[in-house]
Parts: sequence; C-alpha cells; structure tokens
Amino acid sequence: MTLSESVVSRLKFDSHGLIPAVAQDATSGRVLMVAWMNLESLEITLRTRQATYWSRSRQELWRKGATSGHTQKVRSIEIDCDGDTLLLHIDQTGAACHTGALSCFDTGGYLLEEN
Amino acid sequence: MTLSESVVSRLKFDSHGLIPAVAQDATSGRVLMVAWMNLESLEITLRTRQATYWSRSRQELWRKGATSGHTQKVRSIEIDCDGDTLLLHIDQTGAACHTGALSCFDTGGYLLEEN
Repeated sequence: MTLSESVVSRLKFDSHGLIPAVAQDATSGRVLMVAWMNLESLEITLRTRQATYWSRSRQELWRKGATSGHTQKVRSIEIDCDGDTLLLHIDQTGAACHTGALSCFDTGGYLLEEN
Repeated sequence: MTLSESVVSRLKFDSHGLIPAVAQDATSGRVLMVAWMNLESLEITLRTRQATYWSRSRQELWRKGATSGHTQKVRSIEIDCDGDTLLLHIDQTGAACHTGALSCFDTGGYLLEEN
C-alpha cells in the first residue's frame, strides 16, 4: 500500500522524517510503548497490520517481534488533531518490552505516585 | 520541587531538551493527547500536579488549561524502560483537545480501521 497524497499531506513527520506512535493494548487499554515510524514503516504497517517501526538507535526498519516473536497485530490507527502523532490499537503477543515486561511502562517505575 | 540528580539521570531528553508525554485518562484509559515537556515543565507538573508542557509552536511553558480552563490533574507519572517517554495518568477537566473534542485522537480520524 502506498499512502495517498491526501493522507500523507495530513501527517506531520518531524525533521528526521519520523512521527511518534503510541501503541495501546486494544483490550486492556494499557499503553505498552511509544516508538517512531517513518513513512516506509507506516506503509508496511498498514499493508501487513503488523506494527513496524523505525529504530532510531539502529537506524533501520524494525518489525516488532521479528526476532522475539512478540509481534503486534494492529487493529486500528488513529491520527491526532494536528496530524503529528499516531495511536495504534494493537493485540500484543507476549511482552511489548524488551525487558520481558508486558508494557515498557511497567519497568521504569513512577516519577510521581498517586497521593 | 527540583528533581534529584538521580531522577534526572534516568530521563533522556532529546536534542531539544524535550521528552514526549502521553496523557491518558486515569478513569477511561482513553489516550487524550501527546505533548512535550522540558525539565522545567516537568518540575512544575510534579510540584503542582497540574499538567504543564512545553509548547514547541509557541516556544513557551504551557500550563494545560491556563486559558481554556481545561486543566489536567495528574494522578501519577510513569517512566518507560529506557527513560525517554513519560505516561501521565490524569483527570481531565473538559476537553483535552483544542477543537473541543475530549481526546485529540477523536478528531483526526482513522488511518486504519478495524476489519
């Protein structure tokens, strides 16, 4: 799938050609991770419904779970009001986090706790 | 509140001194918006429990709801595994989106719909 010009024109990629993508568990609502997509990874994600990101550290396409098996099936993708963020509703296989935790936010701890 | 060195050392601000912050409704789990914080806005947020961001377009501190009244009371803040994203669990007063929609993702539409 090649994104139509009209869709691409609604998306605001940053100066590195990237857009942040929030991956949210479609069932529990837990935010699992935030990663980045470039146009190519977004097109692959749309075509395959398997979340594919751009790895900023490795500077390469990163099909989530390609090595770990912890893939993300994408149910839907929403765009925000100004087109500079994506929200993916996904079905996560296994753990989203490389640490083995379900969510990347399960491991970093709280900067501020409920009072 | 000034963040301790140990906390600051766990956070990875980008080359502009910013870190993305996902604001999630603490009750419904709806992701409401993604904005950016610098160290000062984060310190203000921690001290006041009112979400305060850094406006990239206006290049100034942005206390959410300062003009609209649509403030965000912060219940808790989680850090992700590699310290480069924050997840705020908030109680939203009124609409999070400047369009009047509850969530900024209510207005942009779907890039990919459930099949």
